[in-house]
Amino acid sequence: MKRTLIEKIKERTGQQIKIAGFVHTIRDQGSIKFLIIRDISGTLQVVVTKTSPEALKVAKSLSLESVVEIVGLAKTEKQAPGGIEITAEKISILSLASPGLPIPVVEKGVEETDLQKRLDWRWLDLRKPEKTLVFKVWTLMEQSFREYWTQNGYIEIHSPKFMSTPSESGAELFEVKYFDRKAYLAQSPQFYKQMGMASGFERVFEVGPVFRANPSFTSRHDTEFTGYDTEISFIESHQDVMAEEQKAIRYALERIKEKFGKEISALYGRDLIVPKLPFPQVTMKQAKEILAKLGVPNEKEGDLSPKEERKLSDYIQKKEGHEFVFVTEYPIEVRPFYHMRLESNPKLTKSFDLLWNGLEITTGAQREHRYDVLVAQAKEKGLKLKPIQFYLNFFKYGCPPHGGFGLGPSRMLMKIFNVGNVREVTYLYRGVKRLEP
Amino acid sequence: MKRTLIEKIKERTGQQIKIAGFVHTIRDQGSIKFLIIRDISGTLQVVVTKTSPEALKVAKSLSLESVVEIVGLAKTEKQAPGGIEITAEKISILSLASPGLPIPVVEKGVEETDLQKRLDWRWLDLRKPEKTLVFKVWTLMEQSFREYWTQNGYIEIHSPKFMSTPSESGAELFEVKYFDRKAYLAQSPQFYKQMGMASGFERVFEVGPVFRANPSFTSRHDTEFTGYDTEISFIESHQDVMAEEQKAIRYALERIKEKFGKEISALYGRDLIVPKLPFPQVTMKQAKEILAKLGVPNEKEGDLSPKEERKLSDYIQKKEGHEFVFVTEYPIEVRPFYHMRLESNPKLTKSFDLLWNGLEITTGAQREHRYDVLVAQAKEKGLKLKPIQFYLNFFKYGCPPHGGFGLGPSRMLMKIFNVGNVREVTYLYRGVKRLEP
Repeated sequence: MKRTLIEKIKERTGQQIKIAGFVHTIRDQGSIKFLIIRDISGTLQVVVTKTSPEALKVAKSLSLESVVEIVGLAKTEKQAPGGIEITAEKISILSLASPGLPIPVVEKGVEETDLQKRLDWRWLDLRKPEKTLVFKVWTLMEQSFREYWTQNGYIEIHSPKFMSTPSESGAELFEVKYFDRKAYLAQSPQFYKQMGMASGFERVFEVGPVFRANPSFTSRHDTEFTGYDTEISFIESHQDVMAEEQKAIRYALERIKEKFGKEISALYGRDLIVPKLPFPQVTMKQAKEILAKLGVPNEKEGDLSPKEERKLSDYIQKKEGHEFVFVTEYPIEVRPFYHMRLESNPKLTKSFDLLWNGLEITTGAQREHRYDVLVAQAKEKGLKLKPIQFYLNFFKYGCPPHGGFGLGPSRMLMKIFNVGNVREVTYLYRGVKRLEP
Repeated sequence: MKRTLIEKIKERTGQQIKIAGFVHTIRDQGSIKFLIIRDISGTLQVVVTKTSPEALKVAKSLSLESVVEIVGLAKTEKQAPGGIEITAEKISILSLASPGLPIPVVEKGVEETDLQKRLDWRWLDLRKPEKTLVFKVWTLMEQSFREYWTQNGYIEIHSPKFMSTPSESGAELFEVKYFDRKAYLAQSPQFYKQMGMASGFERVFEVGPVFRANPSFTSRHDTEFTGYDTEISFIESHQDVMAEEQKAIRYALERIKEKFGKEISALYGRDLIVPKLPFPQVTMKQAKEILAKLGVPNEKEGDLSPKEERKLSDYIQKKEGHEFVFVTEYPIEVRPFYHMRLESNPKLTKSFDLLWNGLEITTGAQREHRYDVLVAQAKEKGLKLKPIQFYLNFFKYGCPPHGGFGLGPSRMLMKIFNVGNVREVTYLYRGVKRLEP
């Protein structure tokens, strides 16, 4: 007999069916046992009575979170949660859980509150339907971004994570023992997605891990995380990059709301909003003026502190009713050497960040594609040319004007679910003190 | 004026249009210049005459592979390649290439033959239409696999690449300086995709880099490459995993042939075949018997050498007219401790490899999900339990029976294009001696 997913049981009431899943709860009522079985699609009540003595015997030996296969009759039952239950005829134990779970696998609200302990037993934590939901949404989010990109002529690349030199800057870089020499883990696919432009690929995207030896313990940082990166050619300015990004984000959020909006609302109390186009934007200068008027102290010269980001987002939310805001024209001091500068003011870059409800989720820019200008900007920043010569060479033999952005999907998820900690939306978090499980 | 992609010019003959791309060739005929311009979608002839003296002046200053924007009249012209050309009215140089290209960017057959030199200048090499095609096909291949998975209820995971211990075996492992301790780069997402099963995700897939400190210089090996990995729960045996894999491969090849079959045939002389289901399969025992009959010496006890893989594939191709063959039931000696064993013969595993035209592209198996049996098998292999205890714990609190496979997309591409070297189908190859560009 083929297994039926719990969400499909409704279509099969009155029939003998087989289900499989985890034992979510066990309730004893004398000679009757009620089990709640959980599979990837939902939960279902199973009744075990004396009329199936073999099944009752097996049920008595069950521990919470054991994995079972149950054959029985599906029927409507008003008193059962969801209005359906199964009367067990046969129960087979596929995997018996050791008694005494290190953390309980229960509904939201009564869970183990110590985050570190939940991370230690992450696979038990992830069994909770509201945690599994995060990764169902991630799957659809990534699929949607990719659909946007492939439907718009982007080529997918998988760039190497090993690099020969500490390229952009030596800071926050992981060093690898590489046979008889050293290698470094890429902090972003920046240089290599730009190589795609020099290769004439015109539009590329990459999804992959990026590595940052960031020693901080904030709720937003980790030592490795997934990055979404794109780069597009033949642009007029960073505005073309922003136009692409907002369309992709809108497309993804539209699909997520459509498929998971109700569940997100029910389990997280977050009413997901599909953002209107175009997203509002302010220059860094305007942002600082707005913050000054709001009485928010200037905490970061030419850049925004987390607090300033929150305050600016609040202001835009109130004024424009929009959760997103692009901040543009960052001064050259806070941007890398390869960001192109404004023709009208060479102290400013053709760059942007994107904030969503107070959190920076993106950095982007038009890149400097003119070899001589790029070399001059690198020198001005005090960079040694030799370690980045391989990169500079990309611009020697013709390269279209181009730009792109990097977006953090886990930061997107923090805002989709309105949770404050990146650890909650990462499959297995990695930080300074955490390499396990 | 908006730019028109070269492939769309046909729809706009008789109109003034703008194109942008690389200068592919320059041909001088006295007072007339013929340029071939190349963009991501194709190539186009541009004529520059004295009637546009400014354009002619710019054309004279052009070097090969410079990036230009050209405005002019599109018209049908029998003598032009493709039957269409543009008469240039205005040429703007977006990026002037240094003269003297280190490797030529020309059609297949007359290219620079030294592979190392081509890899040194990989972005110039990738400009050739037949090289760009590889990554267009990769994009569609990955999209197709993902479509198969998402349409069949798989959840996408991004598992960490940092691990705390040299887990599976200490061999071929990269060591990372991780703050005040050491970390290791994951050789596969094996343990973590199995964690997805212990998390109740039921079906997962992951696309990401895997790292192998393999010191060899063969045409099939690299130190990092992209892996496609899946794992599925509630299976009866490895046959369920194989059934899923062959359907996904067929789906992808069907779509690739549909969209790129003609181009692959024209540029690589390879007639892509959409494989019939089910794929043929032989046990390892049968494979060795077949090879013995063919007079192929037994080069690898219980396993197949590259030569044996080729000979076996040739045999299946002749006998069954099929390019694929599953080899099953590998002996426990050549398989890792977590492969489940056959009930009928505990010396053999419920495992398989998949060969495509003589190349191994996959390894898969049902996994041992019973804690006690798994521990016994680890001990039998001589493994220390402490470093893998975090993994063994996944099976302590209930875990469904499950299995999965890993597939190498670059090996798929080698067979799609019938090329013998993985370097040709990798965006930027990494090997013992190659970390640049």
